[in-house]
Amino acid sequence: MSELPLKFDRQGLIPVVIQDDATNEVLMVAFMNDKALERTRESGYTHFYSRSRNTIWRKGEQSGHTQQVRGIFVNCEENSIVIRVIQQGEAACHEGYRSCYYRRLEDDNSYVTIAERIFDPQQVYTHA
Amino acid sequence: MSELPLKFDRQGLIPVVIQDDATNEVLMVAFMNDKALERTRESGYTHFYSRSRNTIWRKGEQSGHTQQVRGIFVNCEENSIVIRVIQQGEAACHEGYRSCYYRRLEDDNSYVTIAERIFDPQQVYTHA
Repeated sequence: MSELPLKFDRQGLIPVVIQDDATNEVLMVAFMNDKALERTRESGYTHFYSRSRNTIWRKGEQSGHTQQVRGIFVNCEENSIVIRVIQQGEAACHEGYRSCYYRRLEDDNSYVTIAERIFDPQQVYTHA
Repeated sequence: MSELPLKFDRQGLIPVVIQDDATNEVLMVAFMNDKALERTRESGYTHFYSRSRNTIWRKGEQSGHTQQVRGIFVNCEENSIVIRVIQQGEAACHEGYRSCYYRRLEDDNSYVTIAERIFDPQQVYTHA
């Protein structure tokens, strides 16, 4: 087993693009530290590092919309990765859209929504 | 014209996924500061911020492999963007591959190359 060939940044993080293995859609971008990547590879499901909460979280732990890993791809400079996934529950975005990139930025800085909502976030994320 | 709704990080940067508008391939990930994004929107061609050289560069300025912008998409949290492009010269990666993600990371940390080289970097990047 060789050493992991990735370059984490000064905060110990690497940007990760999550891509739908079936449709090639970009679902989200998040960050991993070495531990989150290790858990992702061990479990076969994506785990990310939350910079605001300073903790590792398993994607879908609240919503059930987990992401099963199909392959991990490394860029030329070994400082970012693409993970192809099978998205469970059809929506990766906590706002209820399939992809987090559901808005196009227009020249006047307004948004055009380009996707349809799959679920209502208020019904999925219930806080006791 | 509304204000630009994006959240740049503490270094003034935002991660950008470059996606092929024709094939949905993820070509590369890079960073932009507000100026690089402004130049990208004004010119219609991608410009990035280089953290190592501390400067804005126009993608393809050496290789001619420029990227024409087809659309800019913003994520739910407004802290990353996807730009769909028409890739000129068929290769986005300075190593001569269409996508920078031409290697799959295996369980033993070795790589499997999953793409074919389109150009020879030594013939494209000549240094006087």
